[in-house]
Amino acid sequence: MHPDRAFFDSLAEAAKAETLPRFRSGLRVVDKGGQYYDPVTEGDQAAETAIRALIEARYPDHGILGEEHGSTGLDREFVWVIDPIDGTRAFISGVPVWGTLIGLYQNGRARMGLIDQPFTGERYFADGERAHYRGPGGERVLKTSGCTSLSSAIMFTTSPHLFLGEDDRRYRAVESRSKLFRYGTDCYAYALLAAGHVDLVVENSLKPYDVGGIIPIVEQAGGVMTGWDGSRPEMGGYIIAAATPELHAEVLEILNS
Amino acid sequence: MHPDRAFFDSLAEAAKAETLPRFRSGLRVVDKGGQYYDPVTEGDQAAETAIRALIEARYPDHGILGEEHGSTGLDREFVWVIDPIDGTRAFISGVPVWGTLIGLYQNGRARMGLIDQPFTGERYFADGERAHYRGPGGERVLKTSGCTSLSSAIMFTTSPHLFLGEDDRRYRAVESRSKLFRYGTDCYAYALLAAGHVDLVVENSLKPYDVGGIIPIVEQAGGVMTGWDGSRPEMGGYIIAAATPELHAEVLEILNS
Repeated sequence: MHPDRAFFDSLAEAAKAETLPRFRSGLRVVDKGGQYYDPVTEGDQAAETAIRALIEARYPDHGILGEEHGSTGLDREFVWVIDPIDGTRAFISGVPVWGTLIGLYQNGRARMGLIDQPFTGERYFADGERAHYRGPGGERVLKTSGCTSLSSAIMFTTSPHLFLGEDDRRYRAVESRSKLFRYGTDCYAYALLAAGHVDLVVENSLKPYDVGGIIPIVEQAGGVMTGWDGSRPEMGGYIIAAATPELHAEVLEILNS
Repeated sequence: MHPDRAFFDSLAEAAKAETLPRFRSGLRVVDKGGQYYDPVTEGDQAAETAIRALIEARYPDHGILGEEHGSTGLDREFVWVIDPIDGTRAFISGVPVWGTLIGLYQNGRARMGLIDQPFTGERYFADGERAHYRGPGGERVLKTSGCTSLSSAIMFTTSPHLFLGEDDRRYRAVESRSKLFRYGTDCYAYALLAAGHVDLVVENSLKPYDVGGIIPIVEQAGGVMTGWDGSRPEMGGYIIAAATPELHAEVLEILNS
């Protein structure tokens, strides 16, 4: 039996019970070290524990790849890909653009996914065929914008500081031709892309759990999401997400010229 | 009779009725021109019209300085300072970190202020003595963090691209010594500072209506807000807002060394 929306909702609610009470409260922050500030919160760890417990009880034959508690059964047909709090820097600074990301891969391909923002009450969900929004303003099916040209595109990235050297040159070539660019939105940028408010996201340095829950939402809303070389995005790394195939092709050409 | 919280609430509700229905809907964007993308939305203009009508009816002897519809009576004892949608780029790209800003100046000094975020349902209000939060999680009096050192400070700015030449050098000297920095939050950064989640905001190129509603909230929550030269911030320009006098002094020294 395939997981349904109700099961994804139960995962989101379990995570929310661990994350939301800790948002904007005193937080104990542990720095993992490394070039960028990369805190882990208690909420991050507790939420992943809660999500994994529900998955293991219902789908003991599925694999799990999580940010906080490692991987198990990655060679199985179905693998859950979990980032309990994507955007930990947003989380610790009080900005509600972090999210809980949960994806379900089948034979390495992202099929279903969820982005949940508990503070604003927004939930973005891809059921395998369509992507849906629930939150303030009601419910609706998600559809990316019709933007086909970079010169009229709104683009987002988490931080320009993530692009160094040649990556920076390639990224700036895109940014400088966009209509409007904006920083600092983490997974929320992809939710806004699926909803048609934003046209393009370009990032690098992503892990599988940064993209696993997102890919189905972008794709099933009509967007295109790949690596900078046009490859499948399931493993993360260098990522483009675009509202239309035309915009995606234009950006791919600029990045690789 | 001085304006009270109920009157400020009525202004916020009148603005919300014009802004929220247009948020994440199709928007007609008019570019004012200039170096940065500076759109004006219908909501911006309609919200200011609604706010001004309420003020003019109740306080016909007060002056008004608004972003969209100009100034009147700036030489009067009381002057209202209004930005109906601060963060228009956030607004048009669907990110709920824009806000309605309403300040009340008395003899040139910001005394009362409001930051309202209708999508998340957050309202930050300074009554002349204290600053208050209402929103998800309930109500509380606002208090800035106890952060006294830049090396442990979370800092925000709208975009690093706003700093050019010598401004950029001065800004970077601060950013590089902070614990964590983040871009893209507009007025919301100051609300988070007043609430103790963020410790420092450094910006430039601000207009009076970008700061008028904010100053009382930061100050009455215990923070310090001035120009980069330590002067009063009511006219905008180069702005520092810090959680504590110690942090403010440290940043002022770095900016001016």
